[in-house]
Amino acid sequence: MSESADHTTKRAVVLLSGGLDSVTALAVAQRDGYECHALSFDYGQRHKVELAAAQEIADAMGVASHRTAKIDLRAFGGSALTDDTLDVPKDRDDDAMSHDIPVTYVPARNTIFLSYALALAEVLESTDLFIGVNAVDYSGYPDCRPEFIASFERTANLATKAGVTADDDHHLKVHTPLIDLPKTDIIRLGLELGVDYSLTHSCYDPLGPDHIKPCGHCDACLLRIRAFEELGQHDPAMLRHHGEAWKP
Amino acid sequence: MSESADHTTKRAVVLLSGGLDSVTALAVAQRDGYECHALSFDYGQRHKVELAAAQEIADAMGVASHRTAKIDLRAFGGSALTDDTLDVPKDRDDDAMSHDIPVTYVPARNTIFLSYALALAEVLESTDLFIGVNAVDYSGYPDCRPEFIASFERTANLATKAGVTADDDHHLKVHTPLIDLPKTDIIRLGLELGVDYSLTHSCYDPLGPDHIKPCGHCDACLLRIRAFEELGQHDPAMLRHHGEAWKP
Repeated sequence: MSESADHTTKRAVVLLSGGLDSVTALAVAQRDGYECHALSFDYGQRHKVELAAAQEIADAMGVASHRTAKIDLRAFGGSALTDDTLDVPKDRDDDAMSHDIPVTYVPARNTIFLSYALALAEVLESTDLFIGVNAVDYSGYPDCRPEFIASFERTANLATKAGVTADDDHHLKVHTPLIDLPKTDIIRLGLELGVDYSLTHSCYDPLGPDHIKPCGHCDACLLRIRAFEELGQHDPAMLRHHGEAWKP
Repeated sequence: MSESADHTTKRAVVLLSGGLDSVTALAVAQRDGYECHALSFDYGQRHKVELAAAQEIADAMGVASHRTAKIDLRAFGGSALTDDTLDVPKDRDDDAMSHDIPVTYVPARNTIFLSYALALAEVLESTDLFIGVNAVDYSGYPDCRPEFIASFERTANLATKAGVTADDDHHLKVHTPLIDLPKTDIIRLGLELGVDYSLTHSCYDPLGPDHIKPCGHCDACLLRIRAFEELGQHDPAMLRHHGEAWKP
């Protein structure tokens, strides 16, 4: 099996949502020489376009493996992203975005996602996890804050065989290469590394019969449209789906 | 919906495997006045008898709700409990049991299980999780150790909305009522609380066409058979499945 332990390459498990941040984190992990094993989650998202984007990105970037784990948070309720009865907010200003915990919050999401990544890392004999959390997220999502990540890393090292026999080579590390970066710097970094952002999907409420077109008005769309604008560009995903004549 | 928030009762999420320990933890939570919401996991166990036992126990003990979350660790490989290609060890002595990390270890299992419990607690507006980890487990499973649980609790409080607005009433607590107890004391406690241990299932390799009968020889069977013996009793699950004439 091509995934058996080979200690001549260093392996990383990279959480890949199909969004702009996680693909940039993947590009950083590849730049840093890791053999990357991508992990996505089917957690009852309303729209599967996010998972299709993750697959397209994984293929385009030539990851060593890509798994999609199915988890059923939907049975627990409690979020606009998985609960059809709640509305996705539209055209909110920066202040509302940065001070509220978003209605799109999924309970314990990153704790669950990182736990799965930890399990996969243990099986693959990897001690490196990558997650694309960043400054924009952690204004609203408690489980994107640096202190959460640091605490999870401590917990992970106590949880595993690797942690029990911990030495410098086996200490599990949660890499957050984007943690201090605003969205524009994330995009700038990704562009330098050759990321094709037209493949990424961030929209909470995609349009069209197949729910593939980004709406351009939810928090996730607005954040990236404005960030590309600051770099003097148009969001390549908007151009791809709405035509090259699209303007913000 | 009967599960909407009612702040006159205190709610707990109780991890319920169908084994001897988790049912005792459930009995303790009920004794302490919690409205108990049980959570079990279908994680690709070889045998579904464990989940049937959890359901039977949940019904018998009158929990407020019982959910079984399906998680697909099987895709990751790496454990005898989910990987058909590995053998369950039989008739091991205490020394081998207590010094090895068991082949039946599931990667990151309690991290994942507690993460789901955290998600459910958040949705139910509960701040109390119960898990039946104990002194027998933590000799072999790193994610049963008190320092792991304490670290997870810290992580959980950083992960959630409850943690962000933490005050004494909203601080999330992971209760481990069995953490210092050897198996005999766990059983003695459960018997005092009226637990029917004949309903519980612990065996790693159950016998019979339906794989329901405990084998009596795997680590899990031996531990409980010996503990009941120390209390001058025969394991009621062995008696139930092998007849009242069964002897160790």
